[in-house]
Amino acid sequence: MSLVVQKFGGSSVANAERVMNVAKIVTNTYKNGNSVVVVVSAQGDTTDDLIEKAREINPDASKREMDMLLASGEQISIALLAMAIEKLGYPVISLLGWQAGFLTSSSYSSARIKRVNAERIRKELDKNNIVVVAGFQGINRYDDVTTLGRGGSDTSAVAIAAAMKADLCQIFTDVEGVYTADPRKVPKATKLKEISYDEMLELATLGAQVLNNRSVEMAKKYNIELEVLSSMTNKPGTIVKEVANMEKMLISGVAKDENVARISVIGVPDIPGLAFKLFSKLSAKNINVDIILQSIGRDGTKDITFTVAKEKGKEALTTLESFKSTIGASDILYDDKVAKISIVGAGMESHAGVASSMFEALYEAHINIQMISTSEIKVSVLINLDDADRAVSAIHDKLF
Amino acid sequence: MSLVVQKFGGSSVANAERVMNVAKIVTNTYKNGNSVVVVVSAQGDTTDDLIEKAREINPDASKREMDMLLASGEQISIALLAMAIEKLGYPVISLLGWQAGFLTSSSYSSARIKRVNAERIRKELDKNNIVVVAGFQGINRYDDVTTLGRGGSDTSAVAIAAAMKADLCQIFTDVEGVYTADPRKVPKATKLKEISYDEMLELATLGAQVLNNRSVEMAKKYNIELEVLSSMTNKPGTIVKEVANMEKMLISGVAKDENVARISVIGVPDIPGLAFKLFSKLSAKNINVDIILQSIGRDGTKDITFTVAKEKGKEALTTLESFKSTIGASDILYDDKVAKISIVGAGMESHAGVASSMFEALYEAHINIQMISTSEIKVSVLINLDDADRAVSAIHDKLF
Repeated sequence: MSLVVQKFGGSSVANAERVMNVAKIVTNTYKNGNSVVVVVSAQGDTTDDLIEKAREINPDASKREMDMLLASGEQISIALLAMAIEKLGYPVISLLGWQAGFLTSSSYSSARIKRVNAERIRKELDKNNIVVVAGFQGINRYDDVTTLGRGGSDTSAVAIAAAMKADLCQIFTDVEGVYTADPRKVPKATKLKEISYDEMLELATLGAQVLNNRSVEMAKKYNIELEVLSSMTNKPGTIVKEVANMEKMLISGVAKDENVARISVIGVPDIPGLAFKLFSKLSAKNINVDIILQSIGRDGTKDITFTVAKEKGKEALTTLESFKSTIGASDILYDDKVAKISIVGAGMESHAGVASSMFEALYEAHINIQMISTSEIKVSVLINLDDADRAVSAIHDKLF
Repeated sequence: MSLVVQKFGGSSVANAERVMNVAKIVTNTYKNGNSVVVVVSAQGDTTDDLIEKAREINPDASKREMDMLLASGEQISIALLAMAIEKLGYPVISLLGWQAGFLTSSSYSSARIKRVNAERIRKELDKNNIVVVAGFQGINRYDDVTTLGRGGSDTSAVAIAAAMKADLCQIFTDVEGVYTADPRKVPKATKLKEISYDEMLELATLGAQVLNNRSVEMAKKYNIELEVLSSMTNKPGTIVKEVANMEKMLISGVAKDENVARISVIGVPDIPGLAFKLFSKLSAKNINVDIILQSIGRDGTKDITFTVAKEKGKEALTTLESFKSTIGASDILYDDKVAKISIVGAGMESHAGVASSMFEALYEAHINIQMISTSEIKVSVLINLDDADRAVSAIHDKLF
């Protein structure tokens, strides 16, 4: 008998029919002799509706009260799913975050899981209950309700799997698994059978939003085998684990990230310590920098170009504008009509040709590369936003 | 500095505007130097909407999961009210039933409050916070969420007032207080300044649904002064306390209860123990009997007539039908087109004329009396349902 943790996102439980569908998946797993813990998010648009209710009353509501409000969303979905499972005739019990033992940090709206005290879950499994747990939420040391932030339910599921040493953690979404590219944009994209944690992390960071990043990090840390699969179709998904059998595939996927803005600081003096000065001002404002490109000094000056998340773009720009004379820049340029296209793959390291194939594909498609960044298992390029989808297709066609 | 508990029902917090209105009432009380604990119900139709969601999935859902579902309603309203109070610039914190220390029995959907461990509330008041508590809910000894049943938020408020020895417990509703009759039906009805617990209890039982009965019983037990008032108008309401100054008024009100069915068991043998046999069969089915009338034995037989709540009527009838031969009845009659009209008043006891004035009013209005029942502070009559509103007006006109 195996212990399986199954997580269903908001769209999987959006209405009565889908809740019944999830109940069928869960009870089938139970019927096959497994112990089952189910983690669910709030139904469909519930969270957005609650945020709207709050905005009407107080757009600057405290995060503590926002968490109190939002946590009601999962409370509704766990109760409804438990009722659906009761309807199918199986023993079930729903548990809120605090009942399931989720102890978190105190940072409301983006709390970190500190510990899962799984005693209650274990007790309910011993009674042969299917256990339905509210994802996304916990309590802090003051006994106050906290939420884990967007995508937190994935993390809840992996945390339970880790605490209980589950045999498998299945993440059900509205896609059938992890693809070599976005299947809605690239018709030839194929589903991967397996992918390693590291590759999945790079893909998640790069905007392929199949799995929440924190959940993959946690799965890697505790070596929890994940499966990403669809709640709508009855097909095997993609397994995420330590060493994936990539079937000699060089790259696991092509990802697109449109949440990027590019900033160029032009004509700064070519003296030591300048990059430090510049980026420390940004980090003081909690602005993370991604790709950095520095030109070779000429005439005693150089240009520094880097990317930030689009929503931080304007803030980064104003911050630097105010230091323009201090750092001695002649100009600061800003562009948020850009996209980052990346290829990811553990096999890349030993195959120098992969990056050049990528550049070749872009060249053939007449797409200009603004910046390049590489890591051991990743190559990213910054290009024009308008070229993004075309670039993904071209690269995918060339490499697969 | 006084400690005031204020309770607001679902219609008082039905939308953003009304939530802001409640926030103003609460913060005004706080501004005047009081410590304030606020108890709120779920917004407007939330509870009914949640019940509908459950029905769609499983009409026979367990009570435990129904309680889990319904408790989310107050969670939403406490968070929104806290946000509204934040908006007005006052320190506030919202607490769920379990956080506020509500320990209840385990009977889901109709749990009884066992104890309020008010430590957390006290701590928050010491920090000068306005404390907003979710009514209607608590947890049982298994740490599972329970609800107190309809009208439970009144009871929550009184329980907090009792646990904290509050100086006043204000119950805000959509009426301005307790009236001598339903003001929507009887234009001449007047608002009472004061009423005693016992009179209020009789009125509540009799269908004047201003206050939940359990809350009045608890207020009487712990001698908590209640005030019933409207959240929409800024007027003093009705005070409910041990000894009310009735300003020489004989009766405090005329109440109508349409939730009644009458059952007559005809021609049973006139022997001892028969009433016991009959009513023990009903109590075994948890059916409460209200007015009982037994005819004087004639020809060795007698008739027993009694009333039950309308929703229990058919069940009572079938129960008795199955025992018809055992108890030797010749016939069983059933009528649920009846209403109970009652006058209540502590002054009644010493004024024999009150009851006869009531009968006179009905006689003049050509309304036939089917049954009569009296207690120290109450006279009830059972009449035709069609005559009910006319009867209330006639009695009110005669007595006030």
